Amino acid sequence: MTHYLCTERLTRSQKMEVAKVLHMNGGIGDTSYANNSLLQQKAILMTKPITDEAISALYHSLSPKTICIADLGCSTGPNTLLAVSELIKTIHDECKSNGQQSPEFHVFLNDLPSNDFNTIFRSLSAFHEDLRNQNMGGDGFGPPNCFVAGVAGSFYTRLFPFKSLHFVHSSYSLHWLSQVPDGTENNKGNIYLTSTSPASVLKGYYKQYERDFATFLKYRSEELVKGGRMVLTMLGRKNQDNYSKGCSYEWELLATTLKLLVTQGSIEEERVNLFNIPLYNPSPTEVKYIVEKEGSFTINCLETSEVQRNSFDDEKYNMARSFRSVAEPLLVSHFGDELNMDQLFHKYNEIIANACMGKEKIMFVNVIVSLTKTN
Amino acid sequence: MTHYLCTERLTRSQKMEVAKVLHMNGGIGDTSYANNSLLQQKAILMTKPITDEAISALYHSLSPKTICIADLGCSTGPNTLLAVSELIKTIHDECKSNGQQSPEFHVFLNDLPSNDFNTIFRSLSAFHEDLRNQNMGGDGFGPPNCFVAGVAGSFYTRLFPFKSLHFVHSSYSLHWLSQVPDGTENNKGNIYLTSTSPASVLKGYYKQYERDFATFLKYRSEELVKGGRMVLTMLGRKNQDNYSKGCSYEWELLATTLKLLVTQGSIEEERVNLFNIPLYNPSPTEVKYIVEKEGSFTINCLETSEVQRNSFDDEKYNMARSFRSVAEPLLVSHFGDELNMDQLFHKYNEIIANACMGKEKIMFVNVIVSLTKTN
Repeated sequence: MTHYLCTERLTRSQKMEVAKVLHMNGGIGDTSYANNSLLQQKAILMTKPITDEAISALYHSLSPKTICIADLGCSTGPNTLLAVSELIKTIHDECKSNGQQSPEFHVFLNDLPSNDFNTIFRSLSAFHEDLRNQNMGGDGFGPPNCFVAGVAGSFYTRLFPFKSLHFVHSSYSLHWLSQVPDGTENNKGNIYLTSTSPASVLKGYYKQYERDFATFLKYRSEELVKGGRMVLTMLGRKNQDNYSKGCSYEWELLATTLKLLVTQGSIEEERVNLFNIPLYNPSPTEVKYIVEKEGSFTINCLETSEVQRNSFDDEKYNMARSFRSVAEPLLVSHFGDELNMDQLFHKYNEIIANACMGKEKIMFVNVIVSLTKTN
Repeated sequence: MTHYLCTERLTRSQKMEVAKVLHMNGGIGDTSYANNSLLQQKAILMTKPITDEAISALYHSLSPKTICIADLGCSTGPNTLLAVSELIKTIHDECKSNGQQSPEFHVFLNDLPSNDFNTIFRSLSAFHEDLRNQNMGGDGFGPPNCFVAGVAGSFYTRLFPFKSLHFVHSSYSLHWLSQVPDGTENNKGNIYLTSTSPASVLKGYYKQYERDFATFLKYRSEELVKGGRMVLTMLGRKNQDNYSKGCSYEWELLATTLKLLVTQGSIEEERVNLFNIPLYNPSPTEVKYIVEKEGSFTINCLETSEVQRNSFDDEKYNMARSFRSVAEPLLVSHFGDELNMDQLFHKYNEIIANACMGKEKIMFVNVIVSLTKTN
């Protein structure tokens, strides 16, 4: 049975159980992901032309009475239903302009079992209210019927029945690996890939990504109908050799903060050396290679785009807080009570303020790929 | 848009918002529903011959590659996946004995948005583990693929796309109404139907049930494929005129407890007079009448069975606690902080101990109906 392979493998090797640990901070408080996900929102809106093209093409070629859409790694917050809302609106507007009633939509929101699904479900009435308000012109067409379900589980396992989906969307999730790669014990002083990481660590990270992404493609190819579409956005690299700022910059600053706490005697050096982030930022070339090798999908479009990290005007946006909402669950799982999170992120905040962030532009790279299931 | 009609109607009339309030106690503590649901478990197992017959007949007539099953009012606890497990096992065993691989199962667990879905999702790995262990003989057949999704919403609205389900199961949920019936203000001294309730109150309750159950049938008939099956179990009455012990006994004792607290000055009499439970226990005749009038389903079987309420040997079983897990959310919603729940249920416990429960057999009546969608 494949469904729990990932968790079992992790248990066997006594590593961090990523599928149990990884989640964004829950709830709606100051350090919650819900209140700190502007970057992710920007990524979804930047990708809109590509997702629009994909859902339209799908609808024209297959015209299903019900369009089944899965959003994988949906998290909990204002972005959870953002991409799905846009997809529905695109089809609904198109149908309206052709004088047709919309198809129905069956939407599956997926994330790991540790995600806060209760909060998503309690926000659905507002989502349906918006859907009604946006689509209630005096044009004789009612709002589209949209039915939302939650699905808890790792997308590195099968999540849906055979040929049950038309469209898969995933944004800012697929750069997370199913486990910390093997061989990272040589990555001393780092917690992710940096310019000082040994070649063996780099290879270990890439091999884990290759295995995970190929697994992802294989399972989705079983779940999608022939002609089904998939649009994936990952935090990645612009080209092959830049393991540099951008993708890993915040993790490097976190490593600096952790090492400072070691110097101060707040945590043990050995614990920090064993801490590595289950994350990989692929290049477009790597994505292309893995998709073609796996063989179930053709690439309609493969692009990179850049977001400037320190360019958000919104005063509420706080880089350290935004990063905390992502990193905290991983840190808690590894360091436990030993590490005071408020102390850590207070320090991190100072370091970020003193670092070059204010002077230098830090660009985040999105790798976006749009795929069609061919066989 | 029908989806929110129920909630809107409630808001307009300033009544208890049942769809927001009604849920069993969450979590896994002493007063949780999860630890206090033996009666519901017994009902599911008693109904097994009827559900087995229905799922087998469905599989023989339609042979879908994926069987889509919805459990409506699944709650959170050991019973949440019990009925579904039994359904899967029945089909899997039948396929095995015919030398076939099982179909895949797409399971939708539904309850109101206030239900604790996070706890369900975190228990799924144990469910899949059981499924593997039960079905991993050396017979060459692997365990069946089963994919579980959560669906939050009132079953008095549309929950699923057109013709997307094969099988609907609901146990101990459909006796809950979508709202407190109109005209209950005359039901002074009672909180549910009793022998002293005025005829107008009785009629108000029945009319609400008729409207709700017909609405339920209409929406399910849109969601089920032709030939789809449905097995529903409700706490009901054996015949037309017994609004008596059994179904309403515990609510009568709760009314007695509340009146005692009024005498002691702990709560206001007026608040108690305005408290009525959104519940109706139908007779088989009423169920038959509403199904035939609605017209989308034929009745394959309509039965009653009895469970003796005070017959559970299990020492952990505590009647007051079991009742509390169901009643507490309704009481909290109506009385708020004014009412101390521990005090109330301490009193209730005494009253139940002194009442006739030890001497007299209190029988709960299950009304079970098995239906096929005809058009």
